[in-house]
Amino acid sequence: MPDHPSTGPDMRFRRLRKKGSRDFELACGIIDAARICHVGFSLGQQPYVLPMAHARDGESLLLHGSIASRLMKSLADGLNCCVTVTHLDGLVVARSAFNSSMHYRSVMIFGRATAVTGMDEKKRGLEILTEHLIPGRLAEVRASTRKELNATTLLALPIREFTVKVSNAPPDDAVADLDSPVWAGVIPFALKAGTPEAAPDLKKQIPLPAYLAKKLFR
Amino acid sequence: MPDHPSTGPDMRFRRLRKKGSRDFELACGIIDAARICHVGFSLGQQPYVLPMAHARDGESLLLHGSIASRLMKSLADGLNCCVTVTHLDGLVVARSAFNSSMHYRSVMIFGRATAVTGMDEKKRGLEILTEHLIPGRLAEVRASTRKELNATTLLALPIREFTVKVSNAPPDDAVADLDSPVWAGVIPFALKAGTPEAAPDLKKQIPLPAYLAKKLFR
Repeated sequence: MPDHPSTGPDMRFRRLRKKGSRDFELACGIIDAARICHVGFSLGQQPYVLPMAHARDGESLLLHGSIASRLMKSLADGLNCCVTVTHLDGLVVARSAFNSSMHYRSVMIFGRATAVTGMDEKKRGLEILTEHLIPGRLAEVRASTRKELNATTLLALPIREFTVKVSNAPPDDAVADLDSPVWAGVIPFALKAGTPEAAPDLKKQIPLPAYLAKKLFR
Repeated sequence: MPDHPSTGPDMRFRRLRKKGSRDFELACGIIDAARICHVGFSLGQQPYVLPMAHARDGESLLLHGSIASRLMKSLADGLNCCVTVTHLDGLVVARSAFNSSMHYRSVMIFGRATAVTGMDEKKRGLEILTEHLIPGRLAEVRASTRKELNATTLLALPIREFTVKVSNAPPDDAVADLDSPVWAGVIPFALKAGTPEAAPDLKKQIPLPAYLAKKLFR
């Protein structure tokens, strides 16, 4: 953070990464550990960045939205996009503000999405989304109806061109600051699930299922 | 999430919000509760979305980076950008995958940043960043040197044109699903600070300061 931060993945190093590579495995781990991403695109000269839910199906990132969404339509039409997944893992508290920074893991994926239109494929993709977002839910929830499937746009973005950046080192202070009397170290952060809150209209005899009772995050 | 998600702030409703308005106060609360944002912009036809640390100075969002960063230079030159701050607050577990969604708070700010070049202003802005990112740190850490200030670009983006979206309602199921035997409700999420980890080269007699010992997140 302060003064001289990392500004995230370095855009000068945009390059093609091979699936099956170590970078690809690393990217998948970062993507799979998150439920939301930020989708960037431009309409005319105006950039937009929208938070969206995601899941991964092998070498594709899946996004979904209402069939009525102008954004989904633009993305399905092949608008260039950049999808970024970020975990803020901690604050690096160095002896100087200048050398303080953050622990994070981030993936930027570049490319164009395509709409998944085959009904079976779409159903399967939406099930992957459901299961990624609420692990265990798919086995219990009713199947989506044809009407629901028709009301939904499912997009697949190839995880082919991407960059990964992981910052996880301890403070790296200037030698002249090492005798400073201030504490230095890392404050770790993690997204944690709290106590589930039943819907106001939930029938009292329906218990919280085991898959929701366990911690959804590490 | 599943099937028919909210896809974040609706870009059709991009409009000017007045500072001092209820929306402005809401936006500031969302911005102030976060330490990172996602900065979107396009170079040529390629959009980029980068995670960056931020802080707020009244009606401006502050971003900072290395003077050597091409991104910081492009932003300082007046590149159109969109900065989005998002908190994932929970999973809305509805009786159907289709009606399941997420609790979140999100602000999208549109505009052009300007570089803060006056040395006193820059020093003040970077101090605001330090204190926002690590509350309590500023009083203890040494002042930035002239060399450090010169190595840093500080940007200010007016919080003038923005949209806010807050999703915090319980599951909204179709009437036909209300007799479903499955649990429905919300799993809340929050970013939590863990146990501070001292730097490997920290002198043993330096204790963890009180401002870092307390929980940095709610």
